[in-house]
Amino acid sequence: MSTDSGTPSYVEKGGFDRDTNYIEDRITDDPSSRYPVEPGRYRLVVARACPWANRAIIVRRLLGLEDAISMGVCGPTHDKRSWTFDLDPDGLDPVLKIPRLQDAFLARFPDYPRGITVPAMVEVSTGEVVTNDYPQMTLDFSTEWTRYHREGAPDLYPEALRGEIDEVAELIFHDVNNGVYKCGFAGSQSAYEKAYDALFARLDWLSDRLENQRFLVGDTITEADVRLFTTLARFDPVYHGHFKCNRSKLSEMPVLWAYARDLFQTPGFGDTTDFVHIKSHYYEVHTDINPTGIVPKGPDLSSWLSPHGREALGGRPFGDGTPPPPPKESETVPAEHWA
Amino acid sequence: MSTDSGTPSYVEKGGFDRDTNYIEDRITDDPSSRYPVEPGRYRLVVARACPWANRAIIVRRLLGLEDAISMGVCGPTHDKRSWTFDLDPDGLDPVLKIPRLQDAFLARFPDYPRGITVPAMVEVSTGEVVTNDYPQMTLDFSTEWTRYHREGAPDLYPEALRGEIDEVAELIFHDVNNGVYKCGFAGSQSAYEKAYDALFARLDWLSDRLENQRFLVGDTITEADVRLFTTLARFDPVYHGHFKCNRSKLSEMPVLWAYARDLFQTPGFGDTTDFVHIKSHYYEVHTDINPTGIVPKGPDLSSWLSPHGREALGGRPFGDGTPPPPPKESETVPAEHWA
Repeated sequence: MSTDSGTPSYVEKGGFDRDTNYIEDRITDDPSSRYPVEPGRYRLVVARACPWANRAIIVRRLLGLEDAISMGVCGPTHDKRSWTFDLDPDGLDPVLKIPRLQDAFLARFPDYPRGITVPAMVEVSTGEVVTNDYPQMTLDFSTEWTRYHREGAPDLYPEALRGEIDEVAELIFHDVNNGVYKCGFAGSQSAYEKAYDALFARLDWLSDRLENQRFLVGDTITEADVRLFTTLARFDPVYHGHFKCNRSKLSEMPVLWAYARDLFQTPGFGDTTDFVHIKSHYYEVHTDINPTGIVPKGPDLSSWLSPHGREALGGRPFGDGTPPPPPKESETVPAEHWA
Repeated sequence: MSTDSGTPSYVEKGGFDRDTNYIEDRITDDPSSRYPVEPGRYRLVVARACPWANRAIIVRRLLGLEDAISMGVCGPTHDKRSWTFDLDPDGLDPVLKIPRLQDAFLARFPDYPRGITVPAMVEVSTGEVVTNDYPQMTLDFSTEWTRYHREGAPDLYPEALRGEIDEVAELIFHDVNNGVYKCGFAGSQSAYEKAYDALFARLDWLSDRLENQRFLVGDTITEADVRLFTTLARFDPVYHGHFKCNRSKLSEMPVLWAYARDLFQTPGFGDTTDFVHIKSHYYEVHTDINPTGIVPKGPDLSSWLSPHGREALGGRPFGDGTPPPPPKESETVPAEHWA
């Protein structure tokens, strides 16, 4: 999901109101369904810049779904109409053969009225979008595509912990994942300050929770950690300045900063994070809040690779599983994009 | 001096070009001059938000010139035409009886073509501006108004060190004082990056210089320290985010941060700094780079009062002199403006 934030919508009193209506079709492990799980049948379309898409990239990689679900990558700076495949030769996705993600939405719904958002699952044979419902998408990767998980794939949504994961994820969504957007796109000083207070109160709460506990829920990485991570990764490069989330930098919140580095240094997290795309996207696309389009040169990001010391808290990142192998070359983020 | 930055001027290739042409008349200790030094004859007009005006406020207070030169204070958010006396009853300066600083410029030059800038010295009897040449102004406070300095006033521009002070101040002006504006108002990515590199290279150079030396030149506070301080005080609240000077915060540069806190905690520096006015000015006036006008709530500024440890380097802040007494009540910055 992306904001398509050239046209953010505002509610009364200047608050930012995210359109959370998505195409709710699901790809399920049911041969009789319209969209059954089937290797090679769907293509995941993402932009590395987007925190909501980054979740899907991480989960796909942690679970080893690369061979079952191919991936198309849009460039960081979409135009008014759509995310585009401007990174690909001739500007066409090599599998879907379309220049814009919009084409897959219109193939299915000629009058599609809402934002063209990533992540999206597209059926390759028809070229039609199946779903852009990002919170359900990653859960379905975990629970519906199990037959195609790699050996050693972690259980990111363990049944016994689903209630707690959902609960934590819901708080994180409103105050943090979407909270930073509420700060950045507030239409009034009071709406901004309300979002800012909720954001930092929640970050303090998360910091307390994580002080003596390595991961958010249980003692392994779960969906909840994935969802928090993609916002934390964007905090200092973008949200701190661009969205005015500036009580402190992530790097000034010791517990959260160590937690974020721990995940960053875990296969699947840092190696799917592209700081160049992230900065380019927010600062170039949001001309309503950054009219010059100039992209800040800072901050220094090299410290993401510094020791975090969180191993001392115990925890078993992959539970009974194992870390994924390195990404395939075609899906590797260039090392200079972390500098 | 203020940018009047609603209309910054740009040079070729998108670089920010500050108009450095000021009214160059001087107030000198020469009874035959048009503008002789004389207590009560002139009024210093400032805005606490403005770093160039803040220099004059600091120097006037360190030297104890409050009774000789009265002070009018403009609000933080000037309009297109001028800084205004909107903080005063009925919006009129109580001495000059004008609503806008512009009136004093036009009283002298009916067709004055350049920016209406603070600090400005205005002759009370005629209501005419005398000078807005801020670098000369503070030097003249030090060298021409000596007969009216308080007992124990420091020598901020000692003869033996003037060459070195001028040299350091010149480097600081181009790369730091004005350098942050070059970052913030750059009209191209390359102009921004050039200014950013020069800024942080100079800050690193200053950090090296100050590592084992308490003040910039000699072992006492001089004009050079005043000039660097007013930019450092605005670094984290404004320049880091608003002007994209974000390699690191001042608070992440240990030597400069301790140096800045040392000065902040010295009478005359922190007690003339108004973070509320500073943030309000930059974020509300520069709608070209902050169209929403929303003022960030952060950063946390309480640590300006934390111990700095710089006493261990020796140095004699006021040389053979003494610190100034507390400011008069009418010139006191409210304590809540530092929170």
